Amino acid sequence: MRSPIYLTGTGQTRFGEHWDMSIKDLMEEAIDSAIESAQCTALDIDMVVVANMLGEVASDQAHLGAMAASLLPHHPPALRAEAACASGSVALHTACALLESGKAETVLVIGVEKMTDISPAKIAAGLMGAADAEKDAPSGLTFPGIFGLIASRYMHEFNLTREQLNLVSARHHENAMSNPFAQFRKEIPAEAISMSPKVADPLCMLDCSPISDGAAAVILSTKKENPIRIAASQLATDTLSITDRPTITSFAATKDAMAAALEEAGINQSDIDHLELHDCFSIAALISLEDMGFANPGEGISLYEKKGKMTINQSGGLKACGHPVAATGIKQIIDISKQMKRSGRTYGLAHNFGGAAATCGVHILSHA
Amino acid sequence: MRSPIYLTGTGQTRFGEHWDMSIKDLMEEAIDSAIESAQCTALDIDMVVVANMLGEVASDQAHLGAMAASLLPHHPPALRAEAACASGSVALHTACALLESGKAETVLVIGVEKMTDISPAKIAAGLMGAADAEKDAPSGLTFPGIFGLIASRYMHEFNLTREQLNLVSARHHENAMSNPFAQFRKEIPAEAISMSPKVADPLCMLDCSPISDGAAAVILSTKKENPIRIAASQLATDTLSITDRPTITSFAATKDAMAAALEEAGINQSDIDHLELHDCFSIAALISLEDMGFANPGEGISLYEKKGKMTINQSGGLKACGHPVAATGIKQIIDISKQMKRSGRTYGLAHNFGGAAATCGVHILSHA
Repeated sequence: MRSPIYLTGTGQTRFGEHWDMSIKDLMEEAIDSAIESAQCTALDIDMVVVANMLGEVASDQAHLGAMAASLLPHHPPALRAEAACASGSVALHTACALLESGKAETVLVIGVEKMTDISPAKIAAGLMGAADAEKDAPSGLTFPGIFGLIASRYMHEFNLTREQLNLVSARHHENAMSNPFAQFRKEIPAEAISMSPKVADPLCMLDCSPISDGAAAVILSTKKENPIRIAASQLATDTLSITDRPTITSFAATKDAMAAALEEAGINQSDIDHLELHDCFSIAALISLEDMGFANPGEGISLYEKKGKMTINQSGGLKACGHPVAATGIKQIIDISKQMKRSGRTYGLAHNFGGAAATCGVHILSHA
Repeated sequence: MRSPIYLTGTGQTRFGEHWDMSIKDLMEEAIDSAIESAQCTALDIDMVVVANMLGEVASDQAHLGAMAASLLPHHPPALRAEAACASGSVALHTACALLESGKAETVLVIGVEKMTDISPAKIAAGLMGAADAEKDAPSGLTFPGIFGLIASRYMHEFNLTREQLNLVSARHHENAMSNPFAQFRKEIPAEAISMSPKVADPLCMLDCSPISDGAAAVILSTKKENPIRIAASQLATDTLSITDRPTITSFAATKDAMAAALEEAGINQSDIDHLELHDCFSIAALISLEDMGFANPGEGISLYEKKGKMTINQSGGLKACGHPVAATGIKQIIDISKQMKRSGRTYGLAHNFGGAAATCGVHILSHA
């Protein structure tokens, strides 16, 4: 970071099924809430970055930057950033660049997704836009299928049992009990995970994050100081298609983004107190823990078998909070900041990826 | 500009109907051509920004940042930026911020659109995503209809005749004769414009830019010097819906972006030697000339009635070059740079908007 970037405001809708709210309504609620929490007024916002993946598919709506700017009295310059489920992270990274370049002093970043208005089949097809339409889609695979293949291979390579994998979603559901913004605030015993309907062998329904509506907004500023600031913002990219990779049980983009983020923040992974990671499917949580260096390959499950000093998806993660895809990366920042305020601890990390981690964003927050 | 940003490479496909090329093929051709023209190799590219509007609608493809990065051997960090037909401009602005912030030293910016694979009705519906899906779309209007209303009102307010309006598209077609990348290299006499089929009264088919496939790429660098550099990059936003505005014969976003760009470059509009403006419909060219201060309100047509020292859409503009929407803002930069190299003159300006100018980007290039 060339200049310190402070997190001065946060706001979100509850994640879930909002039948009575449009994409604009969702944005409005999150923006109002972020401005109310910030040490600024709407007029202090110099620029807006909107993260969104499915506006065209589910709401016939592109051009969401201008829509968000229309909700502010002075219509500041705005744009939409997209990288599938990592849209939140690329929007945050863009906002950091706008701030560090001096183009803006206060930037509103809002992630929004409206997914429940169209059929699950159409949403699954839209989400498949995160993979390669020429190389991956023709096989008939959707994302549960891709991660089903990944889980099969991982269980074969590392002798992970189905009972062990159950621990991931069970922990996330347990954590969500105390999060009022979570879509599912319901404890689910570990053995119930693998008893839920099979979606893509070996993954069951309760291994998968749900389809959700929601919006999450943060206000970042170089002008107003705040105890919580962005210590690192890094993106990395891998091949769009998993068919072009040497392995599917490890994601190069996570490794690259993590290494760059730790270097930027000047810390080690053992310094992280709170982690929000991208558990779009239960298996993704384990692979991500390993790729980030929190566990050796094949040993990610150990962090679910017993709790360590670092909290993992205390919010409930994508599984239990819900996963309005482009809002997720922003929501992670909000949750990390809340966790640091509550615990008084210093470093939180948000890990967010798109597709099969073709894009990965890692953001580190520090608490003075 | 905090640090000078140089235009070190440019490349594009011909704009037109590329039945045999996918969105990936189009990107590949433009990227290869930009790298070949640049004083760098693919490995020098630190980041990629992709401008695209209609990937989901026309190609079932989101996540185009990762797709572009997949075409480079080292998969640099990448994201997609979107603001409807101003996607090219917001991508350029994002790239400038990445460069000025120090996050990157060399950025590839590529605009791409694949529009001819689906029916005109579906493309028209997709393009309507640039307007407000709640306020504008329910009326049944599409963009030719919106600009038909704007043209009607303009002709009423300023007594512009249909014969005068013919001069705009006729000039753009004349200019495209010398542009090998233009979709239509065919001179069209002024009187033929208003004899073409009526699309949305008073606009005829030849007042409208076409549906096009195409890609355009530039390489921007703070590291490698080049005689041509970015002197200003500015965005402005207006209400997404035209129903929320005090007038429809002038676009506030153009005025705001232009004023900010002239201030950033430290010049007056009379210093501009070459102009590429956003003539999505003929009437838009006149309004834009007035909003940019090149003519008084109602007098934009005077710049088509006789030629001045400043060239206007020498490339052929959107009308004759074609308008693969997100590629247009990048293609304008390529054309401006070619014009400055040929003429040896100093300042060129690219004006690009999305929707009914809900987002406007103005970029000024200078030639040392």
